[in-house]
Amino acid sequence: MSRSIVVATAQLGPIARDEPRASAVARMIALMETAHSRGARLVVFPELALTTFFPRWLLEGDELDAFYETEMPGPDTAPLFEAAKRLGVGFYLGYAELLHEGGTTRRFNTSIFVTPEGEIAGRYRKVHLPGHYNHEDWRRFQHLEKRYFEHGDLGFPVFEAMGGTLGMCLCNDRRWPETFRVLGLRGAELIMLGYNTPQHYPQAPEHDHLQDFHNHLSMQHGAYANGAWVIGTAKAGREEGCDLIAGSCIIAPTGEIIARTQGVGDEVAVAEIDLDRCRELRENVFNFALHREPGDYGPICEGAEARAEERAEITRNSRFTASAD
Amino acid sequence: MSRSIVVATAQLGPIARDEPRASAVARMIALMETAHSRGARLVVFPELALTTFFPRWLLEGDELDAFYETEMPGPDTAPLFEAAKRLGVGFYLGYAELLHEGGTTRRFNTSIFVTPEGEIAGRYRKVHLPGHYNHEDWRRFQHLEKRYFEHGDLGFPVFEAMGGTLGMCLCNDRRWPETFRVLGLRGAELIMLGYNTPQHYPQAPEHDHLQDFHNHLSMQHGAYANGAWVIGTAKAGREEGCDLIAGSCIIAPTGEIIARTQGVGDEVAVAEIDLDRCRELRENVFNFALHREPGDYGPICEGAEARAEERAEITRNSRFTASAD
Repeated sequence: MSRSIVVATAQLGPIARDEPRASAVARMIALMETAHSRGARLVVFPELALTTFFPRWLLEGDELDAFYETEMPGPDTAPLFEAAKRLGVGFYLGYAELLHEGGTTRRFNTSIFVTPEGEIAGRYRKVHLPGHYNHEDWRRFQHLEKRYFEHGDLGFPVFEAMGGTLGMCLCNDRRWPETFRVLGLRGAELIMLGYNTPQHYPQAPEHDHLQDFHNHLSMQHGAYANGAWVIGTAKAGREEGCDLIAGSCIIAPTGEIIARTQGVGDEVAVAEIDLDRCRELRENVFNFALHREPGDYGPICEGAEARAEERAEITRNSRFTASAD
Repeated sequence: MSRSIVVATAQLGPIARDEPRASAVARMIALMETAHSRGARLVVFPELALTTFFPRWLLEGDELDAFYETEMPGPDTAPLFEAAKRLGVGFYLGYAELLHEGGTTRRFNTSIFVTPEGEIAGRYRKVHLPGHYNHEDWRRFQHLEKRYFEHGDLGFPVFEAMGGTLGMCLCNDRRWPETFRVLGLRGAELIMLGYNTPQHYPQAPEHDHLQDFHNHLSMQHGAYANGAWVIGTAKAGREEGCDLIAGSCIIAPTGEIIARTQGVGDEVAVAEIDLDRCRELRENVFNFALHREPGDYGPICEGAEARAEERAEITRNSRFTASAD
């Protein structure tokens, strides 16, 4: 099997709060068809790609639950799977996942990778949940990911598909070099991620003009330091009064952006990537076996038990992240 | 004590193989005086700042030993300490350290921080040694750091000086995000580093044009992801037929380069930095206590024992890195 593959970042413009999933899916199918017409066999959609970014509001009950998927594919998303099979395109999709397990309801910010055969080959649940637990009046908009999602319980898995070793993450994960490093240590050659990133960061608005820079800095460094391809895809534009950054891109293992979107709406950018190029880095400057010194990295992994206990405490006190059915 | 301080990166141009230390020290004193005249109270010199970058040759015996310092300050370096005291300037200095300890000779690639009072307040020994152990004929020049230096035995310490928490690293360390993260977890507000980085990387010459990009990408990301100031200082220019990159710079906790050198020779760039600005990141997007998930980072710290055994084996077989006296 060839190790070169044409890939696409498939950026979405804003999704309105009342926009039905069928509409979002139709937009994604149109992007997939465009990508396919440019030769793409792999397409990366954003985080929470089926709905508006609902953590910006305090919601409860059915109004909240309406934003989660309870099956994948379900009636609304099946057409996306069918289009992928018809076109022979694999895809990454982010969505809110709700499942009933052992008498409790669990909620995750999830991504999947679906093969050109329509099979779910990889699943990831977001580890780094940004934002806050409770409504905060002072904010122009909320960022309630910590309230609406449990900490992902799958770690950072990799999986084999499309002739290579693939990994996934979501949005805020890209700001933590540990995300890319764990995936890199596990051999990821292509790391896919979607994001919903407001231009305005309420706690440090003096950095708002740096959002695009920080987005690219994080992803380009993650690619370079691990010798991996990275595809990052935005949900962009003014969504329900909140500006989301764009800048979706395909990044080489050298850290160079080799393709990117130009606007803040629905848009595809494609590039041919050779997974074998990872070796240019991983066999040389970033030959982990020759050069890493894990004995000096101890503090990075400290505090895991205390953190797990803290999360359990939050879960016990929350009606949302793992409530009894 | 004020948390704002004027700092300088003090870049050196090439040092010839036969240039005496007294000459290199005189050049550094001139740079320190220039920095002081622009208000600087802290100056960062390069890695191995007292001599040419000698790991580019296979050397033995006295010819090799001549490049190491056996005391600090010694007769050649005392004038630098005296100038610092006279001017009231603290400084970072990289040099090759040779010490006799318990019947063996030990060699490290070392940096120190000297206070304006002339006291050595911090010491670091390079953890990530790049290059190779044995002479390789195919190379245009050698990179024998793994032969000439032991793995640093101090980890990544931080220390209090100049009203803040300071940390140090050296050259290749900056390419490993673990370096900045361990220092960040220990509270470093300013991370200082010197480097000698050839423009030409023999194993992947197709990346030679990216050396400046990779240098800045690594340092800017290290600053941003840890909300710390970074000062990186090159030994630059054509040294003994080998081109070394320049690009010395002062980087804000936002990852922005706020001052940089323009050429490849002896040159100073200064900026006023406020150590309190680290809080803009560390209390928000990079609030480690709120957002890090160490339970998912395990692979980063795995393999320490095997690595230590591997290093011990190399040491036993080496006449250089820890030879019997």
